Amino acid sequence: MKPILVFQTDFTYKEGAVCAMYGVVKSVNRELEIIDGTHEIPKYDTWSASYRLYQTMKFWPEGTIFVSVVDPGVGTNRKAAVAKTCDGYYIVSPDNGSLTHIKKKIGISEIREIDETINRLKGKGTENVSIFHGRDLFAYCAARLASGIISFEEVGPSYSVDEVVEHPILSPEIKPNYAKGIFEINDPNFGNLWTNIPTNEFIKAGFNYGDHIHVTVKHNGEEKFSDRVLFERSFGFAKKGDAIVYNNELMNIAMAVNQGSFLEIYNLYHGPEWEVEFTK
Amino acid sequence: MKPILVFQTDFTYKEGAVCAMYGVVKSVNRELEIIDGTHEIPKYDTWSASYRLYQTMKFWPEGTIFVSVVDPGVGTNRKAAVAKTCDGYYIVSPDNGSLTHIKKKIGISEIREIDETINRLKGKGTENVSIFHGRDLFAYCAARLASGIISFEEVGPSYSVDEVVEHPILSPEIKPNYAKGIFEINDPNFGNLWTNIPTNEFIKAGFNYGDHIHVTVKHNGEEKFSDRVLFERSFGFAKKGDAIVYNNELMNIAMAVNQGSFLEIYNLYHGPEWEVEFTK
Amino acid sequence: MKPILVFQTDFTYKEGAVCAMYGVVKSVNRELEIIDGTHEIPKYDTWSASYRLYQTMKFWPEGTIFVSVVDPGVGTNRKAAVAKTCDGYYIVSPDNGSLTHIKKKIGISEIREIDETINRLKGKGTENVSIFHGRDLFAYCAARLASGIISFEEVGPSYSVDEVVEHPILSPEIKPNYAKGIFEINDPNFGNLWTNIPTNEFIKAGFNYGDHIHVTVKHNGEEKFSDRVLFERSFGFAKKGDAIVYNNELMNIAMAVNQGSFLEIYNLYHGPEWEVEFTK
Repeated sequence: MKPILVFQTDFTYKEGAVCAMYGVVKSVNRELEIIDGTHEIPKYDTWSASYRLYQTMKFWPEGTIFVSVVDPGVGTNRKAAVAKTCDGYYIVSPDNGSLTHIKKKIGISEIREIDETINRLKGKGTENVSIFHGRDLFAYCAARLASGIISFEEVGPSYSVDEVVEHPILSPEIKPNYAKGIFEINDPNFGNLWTNIPTNEFIKAGFNYGDHIHVTVKHNGEEKFSDRVLFERSFGFAKKGDAIVYNNELMNIAMAVNQGSFLEIYNLYHGPEWEVEFTK
Repeated sequence: MKPILVFQTDFTYKEGAVCAMYGVVKSVNRELEIIDGTHEIPKYDTWSASYRLYQTMKFWPEGTIFVSVVDPGVGTNRKAAVAKTCDGYYIVSPDNGSLTHIKKKIGISEIREIDETINRLKGKGTENVSIFHGRDLFAYCAARLASGIISFEEVGPSYSVDEVVEHPILSPEIKPNYAKGIFEINDPNFGNLWTNIPTNEFIKAGFNYGDHIHVTVKHNGEEKFSDRVLFERSFGFAKKGDAIVYNNELMNIAMAVNQGSFLEIYNLYHGPEWEVEFTK
Repeated sequence: MKPILVFQTDFTYKEGAVCAMYGVVKSVNRELEIIDGTHEIPKYDTWSASYRLYQTMKFWPEGTIFVSVVDPGVGTNRKAAVAKTCDGYYIVSPDNGSLTHIKKKIGISEIREIDETINRLKGKGTENVSIFHGRDLFAYCAARLASGIISFEEVGPSYSVDEVVEHPILSPEIKPNYAKGIFEINDPNFGNLWTNIPTNEFIKAGFNYGDHIHVTVKHNGEEKFSDRVLFERSFGFAKKGDAIVYNNELMNIAMAVNQGSFLEIYNLYHGPEWEVEFTK
């Protein structure tokens, strides 16, 4: 079977962009299987694009091709690329920070710039369009790769993985009975915030399920939240409406409110300026 | 062909949860067909999860497997289960009220608790995660069932259908020229409200298409709407902006505003405390 | 392979309508491939339905069947139809303006009214439902057509293409160093507005990439925007937050704000009352 194409973009389904893009795939090869990863990455947010690839990729069969189009620089001089990861996936994406987590945490074994003279849609009157590479370049090139029309080498010229554009990723500070990190990302639906502190290290540092832990959240140094909070395996161990420290789906420490939005109730967000400190 | 997997959750597509969950399915078996039922069930709302299963299931081929994950109690002691319905479908779901309508209106012939020692995802480093059973338990178990790796019996031990958790379902009161019920559920997009009064009984009680019917809506006994409203087959029989009583897609009496939101205009909602009374 | 079914509606995924509709398709024939075009057409907006078909159709394989259900008049006397286009696609839709762009810009070679006595879902207890033709009529008929159970002729009686309901489409006025048109449609996600002025004609009239062009936008004659704006190939040529005139994905002149919403910042919208004038 041909590799699956998993798409993630910031297009939403509010107009026809996704539909046109998928039509291009099916016009290359009817048999290709298309999956919506998500089309609700926050607009222009290459950090979130990067995180969502990291969050989801390993659950897919090896060889799966991810097409990630969060592309505020479309039509300018950022590279359009296909990366091959060290664990055997492909990512078709602008090289604009969207590959950060995969490069740092999984590894990219090879990256190639898409050759527009070969791997760009022709014959639909869109040759002079300089926007919407999702349709004319990324989807088209990914479909050709998935269907075997081109090999990875035929995507275009390779370039050094060292050149791949990266956002900074911060490391947590963990010592006995103490952990300090940042909120790296959120769950915008349930209103949870995920830190960059691995649960295994947190537990080794002396924190145990069932403990009430002192948590302080600062935004650019200003205190935004400070309380003793239960550390447990899941939301439901807290009373409805109470905050909780828990082990999230990627084995990192996260914070939530049981059946409420930790984000909205305490007016918090994620990013390098959001520091979170845990003490016993 | 293998049974289709239809998913409904309260996850939305705002982050990577659906994508990770579907990756698990495809990693079990590439051939499995996945359909989005919806990922926009209101958060934690097991009543809506239950109603949406009832609203949609019978339109699918017999043998279809529904995976319903509205699971505020994930990781606590609620059961994770697979139900076999009397009309030949399977539902993979927490047993937390999500099975109410199917149990009462269709019937569950057998229910089994998922054995986590066998039917839980392994090898992805998520063995110690106690949340997101949608990915590690429900999707994984459903994919194994759909692909024939396990039989229904191998899901885990059966338990009594009598134990299946239910929300109360209220019955309407219908007599000549009179009907009283509740708004059971809404259509949040078009702003319609659906009662628990079957249209066939309503018509037998003496109400006819073309009649102007007196309608009173009360919330916890307080009057919220009272007017004479046209009863017709479809919205378009009312003037734009006018309220209408109509026969909905499940052959129950419902209320709408033609090209407007009955919900928002009159500030109404659904639930057992929303009583609606019709008199000639 | 059987033709793909591409669906677009104003249903959203907020409740079970899409799920029930797709179940009907799969119950007709398990092999049929269903694609979400979009379910977020603005409610009741047959103009947008028409534009989205025009925007996306040509990127799909010939023979693809589009099912478009934006149907405020469901159950009244508007026709339910299947159109065959001059470029070889089928559109299953209410004949209520949703076919405007395809009729005028591509051409409809033949149109047939769906015979409800044959091509309407039976056996699910919904025979007396007069709403939700998306499920009982359009999806069902489209699935029968796609799977070869009926031919196009067996959809129902043909009628004159001249009778197909149309919205007015306005033509732009273009002369040397001058172009006047309307905002025809928006991109509600990124907040861009698309004019009805073809880029090729605009460039022939003397406007060049790199020019700063004087733009005036009027709503019912009242000035809403007036400024000199850069004309370039893509958003990224403007500074973040600056307006830009660009060539959109369909080779028409459009306006945006780089990484911002032109729509929201200037409180603009689309429609025949939104006139836009370009002078050098």
